[in-house]
Amino acid sequence: MAKVTVIGAGVMGSALTIPLSDNGHRVALCGTEFDRAIIESCLAGRSHPGLGARLPGSVQPFHIGDLERALMDADIVVIGVISRAVGKITRKIAPFLSPGITIVNAAKGLEESASGHLRTLPEIIATSLPQGRREHIAVVAIGGPSKALELASRHVTCVVFASEQSGRLDQCIEIFATNYYHIWPTTDVLGVEVCAAIKNGFAIGVGISDGLAERISPSSPATTMDNLRSAVFNQAVYEMKALTQAFGGRPETVYGLAGLGDLYVTCRQGRNVTLGRLLGQGHSCAEAMELMKGATVEGIEAIRAVRKAIKALEMKGEAKCDDFPLLNHLYSVLFEEAPVCLEIDKFFDSQRKQAMGKVTL
Amino acid sequence: MAKVTVIGAGVMGSALTIPLSDNGHRVALCGTEFDRAIIESCLAGRSHPGLGARLPGSVQPFHIGDLERALMDADIVVIGVISRAVGKITRKIAPFLSPGITIVNAAKGLEESASGHLRTLPEIIATSLPQGRREHIAVVAIGGPSKALELASRHVTCVVFASEQSGRLDQCIEIFATNYYHIWPTTDVLGVEVCAAIKNGFAIGVGISDGLAERISPSSPATTMDNLRSAVFNQAVYEMKALTQAFGGRPETVYGLAGLGDLYVTCRQGRNVTLGRLLGQGHSCAEAMELMKGATVEGIEAIRAVRKAIKALEMKGEAKCDDFPLLNHLYSVLFEEAPVCLEIDKFFDSQRKQAMGKVTL
Repeated sequence: MAKVTVIGAGVMGSALTIPLSDNGHRVALCGTEFDRAIIESCLAGRSHPGLGARLPGSVQPFHIGDLERALMDADIVVIGVISRAVGKITRKIAPFLSPGITIVNAAKGLEESASGHLRTLPEIIATSLPQGRREHIAVVAIGGPSKALELASRHVTCVVFASEQSGRLDQCIEIFATNYYHIWPTTDVLGVEVCAAIKNGFAIGVGISDGLAERISPSSPATTMDNLRSAVFNQAVYEMKALTQAFGGRPETVYGLAGLGDLYVTCRQGRNVTLGRLLGQGHSCAEAMELMKGATVEGIEAIRAVRKAIKALEMKGEAKCDDFPLLNHLYSVLFEEAPVCLEIDKFFDSQRKQAMGKVTL
Repeated sequence: MAKVTVIGAGVMGSALTIPLSDNGHRVALCGTEFDRAIIESCLAGRSHPGLGARLPGSVQPFHIGDLERALMDADIVVIGVISRAVGKITRKIAPFLSPGITIVNAAKGLEESASGHLRTLPEIIATSLPQGRREHIAVVAIGGPSKALELASRHVTCVVFASEQSGRLDQCIEIFATNYYHIWPTTDVLGVEVCAAIKNGFAIGVGISDGLAERISPSSPATTMDNLRSAVFNQAVYEMKALTQAFGGRPETVYGLAGLGDLYVTCRQGRNVTLGRLLGQGHSCAEAMELMKGATVEGIEAIRAVRKAIKALEMKGEAKCDDFPLLNHLYSVLFEEAPVCLEIDKFFDSQRKQAMGKVTL
C-alpha cells in the first residue's frame, strides 16, 4: 500500500484518486487556492462539483494550507494543476518531498524558449526542484485519451506513463493500474509531452470543419463535412509526427495512445473543437473567445509555443516552417486575425511531395 | 476533354460524375441491372434517388442494355459497382474497351485465397480481362475519406489515386481533380486496397464502444465511452499497419488518407459503426443484422477475408494471428457467435511488448 498525494482538485487530478483508492492506497487530495469550494464540498461529504459524484471515502481532502500534512509520508505526488502553475506548485511542495519520491505529472502543456528548445512540464518540474534533490526524484508523465469524467466513472481508459527511469515507471504503473485503467510504459517523455500539448492545438483545426458545415446551404444533399474533417485530422497526425521528431521525440509515440489516440478523443468534443467550430462559422478568434465566455482553450497557447519553437529551429537550419501548413494557418487565425481559409492543396503539399517522390521511384 | 464512362449508378459512381463534368469531360453513367430505377429517374430529368439531387445535364445516363454505346470512345472507365460484382462487370465490359484505356476502381473490397494471398480488386479486374489485353489497360484505385454525398455536394474531399503506372496516374488525376476534389498519387496499390477494405471491419470494432456506452447506468457522471472509442481506433490503426505490411503494402499508406483518414470518416457514421453499436448494446450478430434489415455491411466480409489470409500466412510462418487481437475478436463475434468482450489488456499486448522493449533499452 502506497501513500499518494494529488495536488490540484480539478477534474483530472480528482479522477485519478478513483483508481488509486480502488487499489487500496492511501490517497490525499490537496486543492489549490482555486479549489476551496471543491475541497469544502468533499470535506462535507458532498459530491465533487466537477465530477458530479462523491469521491471514495478513503480519499482524504485537504486545503492548500494543510499542504505539509497532505504530503506527509507520500510515496508519489500527482501534479494535477493547470500547466502554467506547474513550476510554482513544484517550488511550493519541494520542501515537503522525501528523497526517492516520484512525481506524476497529469498536466498538459509546453513552454518554448527563444533557442527553439521546448521546455516540457517534466523538465519544468525537475528544474523547479532544489539542486541536489533533482537526481533523487523521478518524474513520470501521463499521456493518452483520458477524459476525466469517464475515468472517474471507471470507464475503460488506456494511457501511457512516460519516464526515463524505467524502475520507477514500473512501480508507478503497479500503483495506478486497475481493470479499467490500463497503462503502457514508454521512455519517450519528450514525445508524450509534445503530443499532449499540440493535440489541443490541432483539435482547433479539426473543429473548423464542423463550423464550415453549419454554413452550408440547407438545400445541399450533404450537411456534414466529414471528408474535410478526416483530411484535417490526417494532416494533424502528419504534422504531429514531424513536430515530435523535430523536437527529438519518437514517431511511434505519435502513432500510439499519446499521439493519435489522444488527438482522437480531443476531437470528439471539448473546448478546443468548440473554438474551431466557432472559427469555421466565421467568427474571429476574439469573437469566438467572447462567445466562449473566456474559457481556457489550451490549444491556443500550444500553437503559439510550438510555432515559436519551430521558427527558432528554422533559424538554425534544423526545421522548415513550410512543412507545417496546418500549424501555420492556425497560428495566423489565432494570433494574426487571418480569416479561416483551409488551403488544402498547400496543407498536403509536403505529403504530396513525399507521395510524388514515391511515384517516380 | 476526355470521355469517361462510369459503370454502376450507386452513390459513389454517380458522385464521381460531378467533378468529371465540372472539368468539362464527356461523362456517361451506365447503371447495372439493379440501377434501373435510378437511371429512369435520371433519364426523366429527375433527381438521383441516392444523392437527392439532379446530376449535371452533361452527364448522359444509360441502361445496362446500352453498355456498348455508353462505352463508345471512352478514355477512362470507372467501376462503381459493389465489390463482389467487380470481376463479373469487368468481363462484361471487356469486349468494348479500347486498348490504352484506364480503368478506375471506386469499389472497395478484397478476396482471400487459400495461400494467404489477398486478391485486391485491381488484381481481380486485371485477371478478368482477356489475356493479351491486360498489359495495355491500366488500373487505378481510389482510397481515402470520401463520403459520396459530400463529394456530390462539392464539399472538400481529399483522396489518393493508386497505380503502379505513374504516367497513367498523372493523366487520371488531371482529369478528376477539381478545386474541391483533391488527389494525391501513390504507387502502393496493395496498401490502398487493404486499407480500403479492412477499415470497414475495424469501424465495426470502434462502433462497439457506442453501444457499450448506451448500457451505462444513467446515474453515471459520464455517459460516453470516448476513451475506449479512441483506444480501439488507435488499436485499429496499429493492426491496419501490421496487416498492410504483412500483405506487402507500405506503412506510410496506413498513416495517410487511404488508411487512418478513411478509417476516421468511416467511424463517424455509417452501417459498419451501426453494426458495432448494436453488438455493443448486447445483440448477437444475427440479431443485429435483422435489426439492420439485411443491409450490406462491407466490414463483415473484410474481416473474414483478412483473417483467413493472415491464418494462411501464419501457416507459412510469415505472420502471427496473436498480433491481431482486435481482428481476432471481431472475427469471433461476427462468425463464431462470441459475445462482445473487449479484452483491452490483450488488445494492446503487442503494443505493450513493443513499449516494454523500449523501456529496457
